[in-house]
Amino acid sequence: MPRPLHPNAPLVGVPGGRHLLDTPALLIDLPAMTRNIERMAAFAKARGIGLRPHVKTHKSVEIARRQVAAGAIGVSCVTLGEAEVMVDGGIRSVLITSPAVTPSKIARLVKLAERAAPGGVMVVADNLANVADLARAAGGLLHPLPVLVDYGAGYNRTGAANEAQVLALAAAIAGEPRLRLRGLQAYAGNLQHIVAREERSAAAAALRETVAGIVAAARRKGFNFEIVTGAGTGTHDLDAEQNAFTELQAGSYVFMDAEYAQVLATGTEPSPFEVALFVQTAVVSTNAAEWVTVDGGSKCFATDSGVPLVARGTDPASRYAFFGDEHGKLMPAGPRPALGTRIEFVTPHCDPTVNLHDVYHVVEGGALVAIWPVDARGKR
Amino acid sequence: MPRPLHPNAPLVGVPGGRHLLDTPALLIDLPAMTRNIERMAAFAKARGIGLRPHVKTHKSVEIARRQVAAGAIGVSCVTLGEAEVMVDGGIRSVLITSPAVTPSKIARLVKLAERAAPGGVMVVADNLANVADLARAAGGLLHPLPVLVDYGAGYNRTGAANEAQVLALAAAIAGEPRLRLRGLQAYAGNLQHIVAREERSAAAAALRETVAGIVAAARRKGFNFEIVTGAGTGTHDLDAEQNAFTELQAGSYVFMDAEYAQVLATGTEPSPFEVALFVQTAVVSTNAAEWVTVDGGSKCFATDSGVPLVARGTDPASRYAFFGDEHGKLMPAGPRPALGTRIEFVTPHCDPTVNLHDVYHVVEGGALVAIWPVDARGKR
Repeated sequence: MPRPLHPNAPLVGVPGGRHLLDTPALLIDLPAMTRNIERMAAFAKARGIGLRPHVKTHKSVEIARRQVAAGAIGVSCVTLGEAEVMVDGGIRSVLITSPAVTPSKIARLVKLAERAAPGGVMVVADNLANVADLARAAGGLLHPLPVLVDYGAGYNRTGAANEAQVLALAAAIAGEPRLRLRGLQAYAGNLQHIVAREERSAAAAALRETVAGIVAAARRKGFNFEIVTGAGTGTHDLDAEQNAFTELQAGSYVFMDAEYAQVLATGTEPSPFEVALFVQTAVVSTNAAEWVTVDGGSKCFATDSGVPLVARGTDPASRYAFFGDEHGKLMPAGPRPALGTRIEFVTPHCDPTVNLHDVYHVVEGGALVAIWPVDARGKR
Repeated sequence: MPRPLHPNAPLVGVPGGRHLLDTPALLIDLPAMTRNIERMAAFAKARGIGLRPHVKTHKSVEIARRQVAAGAIGVSCVTLGEAEVMVDGGIRSVLITSPAVTPSKIARLVKLAERAAPGGVMVVADNLANVADLARAAGGLLHPLPVLVDYGAGYNRTGAANEAQVLALAAAIAGEPRLRLRGLQAYAGNLQHIVAREERSAAAAALRETVAGIVAAARRKGFNFEIVTGAGTGTHDLDAEQNAFTELQAGSYVFMDAEYAQVLATGTEPSPFEVALFVQTAVVSTNAAEWVTVDGGSKCFATDSGVPLVARGTDPASRYAFFGDEHGKLMPAGPRPALGTRIEFVTPHCDPTVNLHDVYHVVEGGALVAIWPVDARGKR
């Protein structure tokens, strides 16, 4: 069965198309996203640090291509499925930031490395048995499989727990002829969302010091970590200091969301990044006394980080509450919006919100300029 | 580009395939789901009430077909996109349980009614202007468009606020030659999850009394509500009493989840429905002292209703915590599971969890017997 045309596809290029959309619709403000992409690329260039944006935020080949065109050295992926989509979409340098452990994942990884540019797919490892499994599976590859030691960085979602484990893993990887030791990953997800900038800054500085110590200890053992990768949107400016890291994995800067906008606005300067991601809903019921109902609920917005905030269409002080799978309860702060009114929201948490949608509606002002698939949605 | 084969497709029919899956994987226990489908069908038949299962739970044509084959009179859909998938999948009677309000949705509704069996697509309305819009749009249809009055039932997500509004809507629908008044919807989502059975029973009884009063008032005005539809898994047994409803919209019974299992187990009898939906993950990191990390996080489990519960693979008293988009933190209650161990979880809330996955892995014991798409995922 051919893939049916998206209901909004006929609106691309139609004047005022943004206001005629079938709702709920995930929107990218293209000029705002473009500025975000350029600003982060310029920041990394000015600091002499590589930018390897994390695609778990957007899961889009088109956006990854734009990031690379602006100066990114490649991308980061959390799942192997994301990496498959990126390699097959023409992205030439891909780091997989989670270990590939099961036989199925390792087999897919090796197949992916086969069809990618030589050395173009890198993976992290945090376990000696896993290093041995990777080496065995990489036996048939023309080029050694590049591997980074994963360090837990205090968060310990994945990664070695301490310097001794890092050094043991480095030795194991370096000792396998079918693997190539490329460096160290130290990603601290727990630091990204610390709202108080001083506290975030102190925690990031402590991590950089630890990482620098581990890199120095490795060097003394004869291991050269060419790549030291980590940092997210919340610490990108901090982690670019003092050359502890060679690469930034920031992802959310491309879109921003309600939570990150708050985190980055608490510095001495306003956030350099703009909200570029919105969800447009329509008012579908107006009979209740205290609220109107919009057509976006928990299958449209991530529920793990607060509620959507009104961006436009009604008084921004109006409050949203979840109201089931497909509906939201909007408590108007001003005049009650009429049936059919379009209300656009800032998303509560961009990554898992994007993951709930099949496509992006790319808008410039009132125009719908493109529809892009969320290519890696659901790809494990 | 042809649709790539799912990584687990080669495992269908392979002995022990369930234990070789690429993870995370959404699983259906086929015998358990089949018993659930048969039990609800038998219950409805014994009470002489129609069963119109809500597909927002499973979004699957295959499962809808099985429900109809077991005796369901059709299905309920919350989005027009779900209804399109069901009609195009051969389901002959589809009720859309939310109003279609915007010009785009109304145009899609009329196109869908055109290609469905005559009268096979029904929609609800809760607004006089919307009734006029529907009538205008239905002008070209060969058969009148069937419409039910939507009553807010105290929850007021959508629906008329009171009897007077219901009667005004009934009169408006009946007065439009291109529409056909079919009945009343009274769905009270807020009653489904009341844990204390006595409280749930009292609230359901009060709603049935109100509904019966509205139906009687409509009859005195000359409006015959052939269909009175409502109820969910949490009140299906209560709402089948006393002939207030002619149809049940229960959905979650097909899979059950951690929350519903608790709700239905508080009666005097054990729940008649079994948990049939699981997510299988693998342990991907074991370096932390207090936990191991599994490969299922907030892009794999809905986060709006508690956490996943361990079903098998390790001590069921082990506790899960969310650990980012793709990872979970599992605090072992017994021996620490080794790297690569498969852990299966009961999902915290089935509907939005299913919506995060592309496919179902259908298992019988240790065998993977089929892979079914989540057909209507992301369909608005």
